[in-house]
Amino acid sequence: MPSYSAPVDDTLFLLNDVLDYDQHSSLRGFADATPDLVEAILREGAKFAEGVVQPLNQSGDEEGCTRSEDGSVSTPKGYKEAYTGFSEGGWGGLSADPDFGGQGLPHVLTTAINEYMSSANMAFAMYPGLTAGAIAALTLHGSQEQKAKYLPNMIAGTWTGTMNLTEPHCGTDLGLIRTKATPQADGSYKISGTKIFISAGDHDLSENIIHLVLARIDGAPEGTQGISLFVVPKLTINDDGSVGGANGVTCGSLEHKMGINSNATCVMNYDGSTGWLIGEENKGLRAMFTMMNEARIGVAVQGLSQSEVAYQNAVAYAKDRIQGRALTGPKNPDKAADPILVHPDVRRVLMGIRAFNEAARALILWTALHGDISHRSEDEKTRQASDDMMGLMTPVLKGVLTDTGFANTVNAQQMFGGHGYITEWGMEQFVRDARISMIYEGANGIQALDLVGRKLPANGGRAVMSFFGEVGTFLQENGENSDLAAFTGPLKSGLEDLQKATMWFMNNAMAQPDNAGAGSTDYMHLFGLVGMGYMWAKIAKAVQDKIAAGAGDKEDWLKTKLTFGAFFMERMMPETSAHLARISTGADTMMSLPAEAF
Amino acid sequence: MPSYSAPVDDTLFLLNDVLDYDQHSSLRGFADATPDLVEAILREGAKFAEGVVQPLNQSGDEEGCTRSEDGSVSTPKGYKEAYTGFSEGGWGGLSADPDFGGQGLPHVLTTAINEYMSSANMAFAMYPGLTAGAIAALTLHGSQEQKAKYLPNMIAGTWTGTMNLTEPHCGTDLGLIRTKATPQADGSYKISGTKIFISAGDHDLSENIIHLVLARIDGAPEGTQGISLFVVPKLTINDDGSVGGANGVTCGSLEHKMGINSNATCVMNYDGSTGWLIGEENKGLRAMFTMMNEARIGVAVQGLSQSEVAYQNAVAYAKDRIQGRALTGPKNPDKAADPILVHPDVRRVLMGIRAFNEAARALILWTALHGDISHRSEDEKTRQASDDMMGLMTPVLKGVLTDTGFANTVNAQQMFGGHGYITEWGMEQFVRDARISMIYEGANGIQALDLVGRKLPANGGRAVMSFFGEVGTFLQENGENSDLAAFTGPLKSGLEDLQKATMWFMNNAMAQPDNAGAGSTDYMHLFGLVGMGYMWAKIAKAVQDKIAAGAGDKEDWLKTKLTFGAFFMERMMPETSAHLARISTGADTMMSLPAEAF
Repeated sequence: MPSYSAPVDDTLFLLNDVLDYDQHSSLRGFADATPDLVEAILREGAKFAEGVVQPLNQSGDEEGCTRSEDGSVSTPKGYKEAYTGFSEGGWGGLSADPDFGGQGLPHVLTTAINEYMSSANMAFAMYPGLTAGAIAALTLHGSQEQKAKYLPNMIAGTWTGTMNLTEPHCGTDLGLIRTKATPQADGSYKISGTKIFISAGDHDLSENIIHLVLARIDGAPEGTQGISLFVVPKLTINDDGSVGGANGVTCGSLEHKMGINSNATCVMNYDGSTGWLIGEENKGLRAMFTMMNEARIGVAVQGLSQSEVAYQNAVAYAKDRIQGRALTGPKNPDKAADPILVHPDVRRVLMGIRAFNEAARALILWTALHGDISHRSEDEKTRQASDDMMGLMTPVLKGVLTDTGFANTVNAQQMFGGHGYITEWGMEQFVRDARISMIYEGANGIQALDLVGRKLPANGGRAVMSFFGEVGTFLQENGENSDLAAFTGPLKSGLEDLQKATMWFMNNAMAQPDNAGAGSTDYMHLFGLVGMGYMWAKIAKAVQDKIAAGAGDKEDWLKTKLTFGAFFMERMMPETSAHLARISTGADTMMSLPAEAF
Repeated sequence: MPSYSAPVDDTLFLLNDVLDYDQHSSLRGFADATPDLVEAILREGAKFAEGVVQPLNQSGDEEGCTRSEDGSVSTPKGYKEAYTGFSEGGWGGLSADPDFGGQGLPHVLTTAINEYMSSANMAFAMYPGLTAGAIAALTLHGSQEQKAKYLPNMIAGTWTGTMNLTEPHCGTDLGLIRTKATPQADGSYKISGTKIFISAGDHDLSENIIHLVLARIDGAPEGTQGISLFVVPKLTINDDGSVGGANGVTCGSLEHKMGINSNATCVMNYDGSTGWLIGEENKGLRAMFTMMNEARIGVAVQGLSQSEVAYQNAVAYAKDRIQGRALTGPKNPDKAADPILVHPDVRRVLMGIRAFNEAARALILWTALHGDISHRSEDEKTRQASDDMMGLMTPVLKGVLTDTGFANTVNAQQMFGGHGYITEWGMEQFVRDARISMIYEGANGIQALDLVGRKLPANGGRAVMSFFGEVGTFLQENGENSDLAAFTGPLKSGLEDLQKATMWFMNNAMAQPDNAGAGSTDYMHLFGLVGMGYMWAKIAKAVQDKIAAGAGDKEDWLKTKLTFGAFFMERMMPETSAHLARISTGADTMMSLPAEAF
């Protein structure tokens, strides 16, 4: 049976020593989150994830969710108790608005906690995860009355939330939405239509479910200009705030799917359900994108989370499983064989996963911190700069961390040989669960298009120039530091590849946009490598500084990071030149074929 | 529901125009297999795969196998009828020894048919697939009496076969085997022990199951020097050849696993079962390796097979699914959206899969032809040269075609967005099924070690020098052909990278074998790219020659191949330099950490 231990020390090291979290105490909510409190919160969250949430992961996968004939959905054994514990622990409201019962703590903390919960049980963590997205949308776009009506119970976890975008004929292209909203005399709307792939669409964990639904108001313009966002509770809400009767919202069926079996993926039917407009008519996509950006970072966390828990279990197996002998002679001569961790190819796989995990965690927390700054700084320019960086990194994180995170679960599974393919060992579940993260909240190909088509050119390339500037400054400031050369050298050539690729797009994609599309996925991964390479360089510098200041019994632990970082530079950064080579070949070959030739 | 159409025209083109199959008519069995007969066999096999085997793939996955309390195992609905049809069609004996009822046709044909059957239904195709491995081992290592006793029924498909290697504590390291064989007065042995992960270990498809079992004779030397191979029928066989009673062989349980659900993966208990020695005492591994080499090529075929069927279904979806607009403006202005095939990133994915599939198919058939030559040529030197090439390519094919084949099923699934994650669309089954091919018959890390540790240095590097020589000669002969430059240029630099990597091993791995282990997987993939690049160059030349000779209405079909080949050269060959860069970093970083640091 798989196990999990949350990497609290790594998170703390990143926050305190790499990202200089304590320099942001002037931001709203940061002063309250003292280093001691942060550590206490992370350790408490880790305990809950390890002790309550993780033990349900395998049994929940096996049992799955069940839909009764009346359309109600039950979660697996133990989920309701665990969810109640989660809510009572206040985990759902950690960063939410204090005016509605939240604790207002930095979102970067919530991001760290999300990783732990998701590593422990990704399908379980989605229930509060979707609620958090709905809370974000209501907080930013809801009226004061709507906030007062929904947020307190959602933040407390008594009610949960969902996002309803997809319809059978319409996924990426939301302009095709057909769900109808008919205005009523009292200012509400009657919502009718079918939504599919609705995660946590129905379940027995909460008293009510608050659905955020994209629909088209009668007579609205065609396409994306005619989409509005509505809040549609599963059960009506009485004037005194108590829960009333059914609102015509039912789960028509549960999808049979590859993984995340304990999260109910529902076909949702809205049959004249009463809903209320959020924000302005026909401006629903803008509000939905608030939710989606939040959700995309959340999905990136899922990619990391499965990579991390898969790594931990693969390491335990590689230390325990004895089979064959080291290439350099027996390391374990008293036993029948050596543990497979003696083999360089096994270490190559494991180090590749961890070298990714540590950099990915750094990049997520770095981005989440920019998210906090973008919402909480008093200085407009600072807010804007951080908002730029978060916007730029969102598709990179979502695409790269889920593509590579998934690949890592496969690699970790491989360490188990045949046992990795057998359900009881739990490794194949990580693969099946991680797989969805590449698909939902915008398939990774869409993330790549968002990066090259929108985030790169936005505001004359302001965001990407700022990123290049920051990495360039780091390289300049540390160029003379020969102890960092193993990090700054590969980072410099990776950055050059990224800059050349960016220049190639500028020269070749304006006139011929297919050249951008043809290189988009390679560019996204090239960007991810440079982003993670930058994080490793920052980590290496922080390790150096700490050791120079006297790290005591932490010194070995810190030095180990330098080795994983060196591995990243040696083994992963060379890929940047292959990405650049591919990008530079453009779209001609792939666009030259007629459809019939495929 | 997924569909499948066997690529018979591609197979014929490869055999006739690229591999010059007709030049081998002097080989035993080849003269009988005239071009007309070959085409007839392939079309008939395709029909059976498409019409009988494929329709059971999804239902078989859903239903799975069932074990009754008495230990007997049932296959899903329809499997018995399909298997009977397979056997009656003579598909199991296509290349088997005519002395025992086989048709003695070239193995390269069987390889092509195997691809079709496996694309149609990988789990089903494993039942006859394992039988074929057992037939090969008995043919080469069994006594005349054993052959007469077992082969006719196995070749006819009335009896099936299995391979029993793995035990709970022992997978890769067969020296740890504990299953016991106790000699009896009549020359037989009593076999006792437990084997795990036995594919097709029990089922209801055949009258009897002939198990080939690795065990240790009482008092045999420790380790791999004390392993012998036994034939152990499920039911005893009477002197008249009829089937008798139980032989103490039972399926203790069925494994719950990630995929290939309709193939019974059994824990097999041998409880004093009567078995007979195959070949010599303590020489069991040699005989088993005969079976394994055969099986490894078979597993490589599985990697291709899932990549091919996943490609076909992804293309159909990409042509059908309308969503969004082309980057260059609407292509389908009368409809609400364009088919997603207009997007370069979608084409990138699909072309990557197909550019792999066509080259992989060529490389498999090229290797299988070498296999035929190695067994059937009258000239010893020719036999040896082909045996060298087959030995060299076996780990490359197994490792690369399953790693990349699996990745391709994931990429094809991605084209479906959320629908790809839903069981009913069938794409996630291809992913789950393909996953096992990277693990069994020697996990791919073991293939990489076999390549760098055994196949490369064998006979002073004779095999690899011969491969370099052949590719070098091709490049020299076609260096002046400017129409081929888009192929020969990238192939040349890929070959140079491979030669540099080989040289790096020669200089750095003799004294420090961990340097070979640390680069083994990269080297295997580098080798695979050069092998596939060579195949594309050969295909391009064959296309040129055919068009020059007048290809008529086949011309467009042939030219399309040039585009997929160009894509391979532009987008896949750049990876060779990244592999070389990684290999050249050696083992120091990864071996420097103590086990506790992981």
